[in-house]
Amino acid sequence: MNCTIITIGDEILIGQTIDTNSAWMAKELNAAGINVFEILSVSDNAQHISDALNRAFTNSDIILTTGGLGPTKDDITKNTLATYFGAELKFYEDIWKDIEAYMAKRGVGILESHKTMAMLPANCEVIKNERGTAAAMWFNENGKILVAMPGVPHEMKDFMSRVVLQRLQKQFTLPGIVHKTIMCAGAGETILADIIKDIENSLPPHIKLAYLPSYGIVKLRLTAKGNNKAQLTAQVEELSEKMVALLTPKFVFGYDDEELPQALGNLLLQQNASMATAESCTGGLIAHQITSFAGSSRYFKGGVVSYSNELKQALLGVKPETLAQYGAVSEQTVCEMAVGAIEKLQADFAVAVSGIAGPDGGTPEKPVGTVWIAVANKSRVVARKFQFARSRDINIELSANIALNELRKFIIGIM
Amino acid sequence: MNCTIITIGDEILIGQTIDTNSAWMAKELNAAGINVFEILSVSDNAQHISDALNRAFTNSDIILTTGGLGPTKDDITKNTLATYFGAELKFYEDIWKDIEAYMAKRGVGILESHKTMAMLPANCEVIKNERGTAAAMWFNENGKILVAMPGVPHEMKDFMSRVVLQRLQKQFTLPGIVHKTIMCAGAGETILADIIKDIENSLPPHIKLAYLPSYGIVKLRLTAKGNNKAQLTAQVEELSEKMVALLTPKFVFGYDDEELPQALGNLLLQQNASMATAESCTGGLIAHQITSFAGSSRYFKGGVVSYSNELKQALLGVKPETLAQYGAVSEQTVCEMAVGAIEKLQADFAVAVSGIAGPDGGTPEKPVGTVWIAVANKSRVVARKFQFARSRDINIELSANIALNELRKFIIGIM
Repeated sequence: MNCTIITIGDEILIGQTIDTNSAWMAKELNAAGINVFEILSVSDNAQHISDALNRAFTNSDIILTTGGLGPTKDDITKNTLATYFGAELKFYEDIWKDIEAYMAKRGVGILESHKTMAMLPANCEVIKNERGTAAAMWFNENGKILVAMPGVPHEMKDFMSRVVLQRLQKQFTLPGIVHKTIMCAGAGETILADIIKDIENSLPPHIKLAYLPSYGIVKLRLTAKGNNKAQLTAQVEELSEKMVALLTPKFVFGYDDEELPQALGNLLLQQNASMATAESCTGGLIAHQITSFAGSSRYFKGGVVSYSNELKQALLGVKPETLAQYGAVSEQTVCEMAVGAIEKLQADFAVAVSGIAGPDGGTPEKPVGTVWIAVANKSRVVARKFQFARSRDINIELSANIALNELRKFIIGIM
Repeated sequence: MNCTIITIGDEILIGQTIDTNSAWMAKELNAAGINVFEILSVSDNAQHISDALNRAFTNSDIILTTGGLGPTKDDITKNTLATYFGAELKFYEDIWKDIEAYMAKRGVGILESHKTMAMLPANCEVIKNERGTAAAMWFNENGKILVAMPGVPHEMKDFMSRVVLQRLQKQFTLPGIVHKTIMCAGAGETILADIIKDIENSLPPHIKLAYLPSYGIVKLRLTAKGNNKAQLTAQVEELSEKMVALLTPKFVFGYDDEELPQALGNLLLQQNASMATAESCTGGLIAHQITSFAGSSRYFKGGVVSYSNELKQALLGVKPETLAQYGAVSEQTVCEMAVGAIEKLQADFAVAVSGIAGPDGGTPEKPVGTVWIAVANKSRVVARKFQFARSRDINIELSANIALNELRKFIIGIM
């Protein structure tokens, strides 16, 4: 069962708005067993919208559109749909009453021009908007479905959750789709692919494997399609277990939507332990990533961003002679930072980073991208050197992600 | 001059990845005078990609694709393009040498399978990737252009900025477009619009004003289109000066791509002064934003992320009785944090934040979204309370941006 998503609005095509609606819809549709064939973003232009509809009706059984349903001149989706289906616009009395009630409740004055919001094609089923004034329209066209929804994200999400997904599941017999993502860190996709190449080469045709790399992280996503959802789940689970057995916890930190800071937090909670950060070149990004997750105060004591050498001494107790002899970007300094964080920030574990993010500050012995990462507990400290060769922002992001993974490995005893 | 953007990758169609590339590309293309006709997101499927190419060649003179250029099996864009144009894949020796050098520099072992990265269509011009291993491909097809780039955002952005936009501007005669952006903070778009309404209402038809709001920041973008670029520039400059005279430094912190942390850094450099941060609910984001910019070590001493109350005392000298009497989220505590940061982090200026980011931790007196922000120098400290009502991540981002702006206003003496 194929679906085409059509996003209508000039704001997308001039880059003013990032289309987050389509990804949300695609995730929900996939989970319901509906394949998203294509996403099309088109302008507020009748010819262009009609042309996109022709394409979508050729490729798909289900068409979902968002956008262009407002009261202003540039919103032409309703008229275009009426023309497309050869229908008239008619005034829906009940929808107008709902709009009046909605505006009154919010204390908004009603203008005559608001009445256009209740003018909708005569050949569709109108679905009331419970979070705004633009109603959705449900068209049945020779066994195919078109649903037009407003582009405001929370209004669209309400229509999808409250009406659209349920009705589509009733109307069509949908195949099962099962996804499973293995979250990896510590190696690039080529190395990971080499480890699991025998499994990948013998995948059955209805199961696909995708590699989704970002900085220091690679997601391995298994997707199975078929009729028997329970069987697909079992097959995917078995494959996932085989892959994870080869990849080992050295590379695997979690599943599905679990992010690295969450995986680390869960480990700390299991051990009833706390952690702290001592950051130089990452400048607070590690602490920010950890505290992005609600509940992190249960294991995160805090952190120090010791950008200057004075603060490495004053806040973390790094010895002046260590800085003088080895420099700020060195094994010795980063180890003293980690040990200092354990003591001064009263934590069970600590991670420390010192490096040269660039673009300036490199030397022949320590070029831009040289980063030392240390992890420690109360009795032991280990440091490793990394060499990145990227732009400043990426060197920082790579360092932060790898630092989180180094601490994860240290906590589970493989470092 | 029309352009179609084609995004290739199953991860978009299953909703795992939000397509941020297209909006960035659309913005840059528009600024260069190229109209984005359509954005198409298609799967990693040869038939589907070819079909999208057919549609794009019908509608547009310029086609830009991203994605599907990795070394793994699901990446089929290269082969599909070769087949589409009836060309062979050939081994590009120079690209292979670049890949080897890139991998060696990063200390990554080279596998035989990496060689597929240097296998590219014989009929294209290959453009070297300076930030990764997947080269871009430039095809000329009967006066139309197709450029295939990797989907990794920073690699795509590098190709666009370094090569693609410049070459398109050379190859095609594009209309003159002049942009000027006034960067504002401290008020929402409605308030700003009210201040400059007379100017906005009398804009000539070839000059448009757009409001681009994000968390705590509003960009006012003037766009002028015409043939005489020098004249457009003069008109836009004059309008910009008039708007800024009304908005004053209270709301205007910079122009064009200047970000708030940079504007703050420039002020500190002018005064030869340093700053420090003391963060609770923002968890390191302020320090991260400041240190995202090269050269920040000239004015940023460092920061403390005092997530726990113990660390507010141990690292910043907040008094236990202050915490006991007023709580961590209070004017008294946040002022002591700022003053403590001045002393302990040896800085001329400091900003401190303490709040409840949510989703938990609120009380009737201090609901989720309550945030105190203090700014201080060696002789004075001022604090203000803010009440946000958003999700955790947005409350954190709003707090960080507003904190940076509070410190900016304090430094220029308007707070």
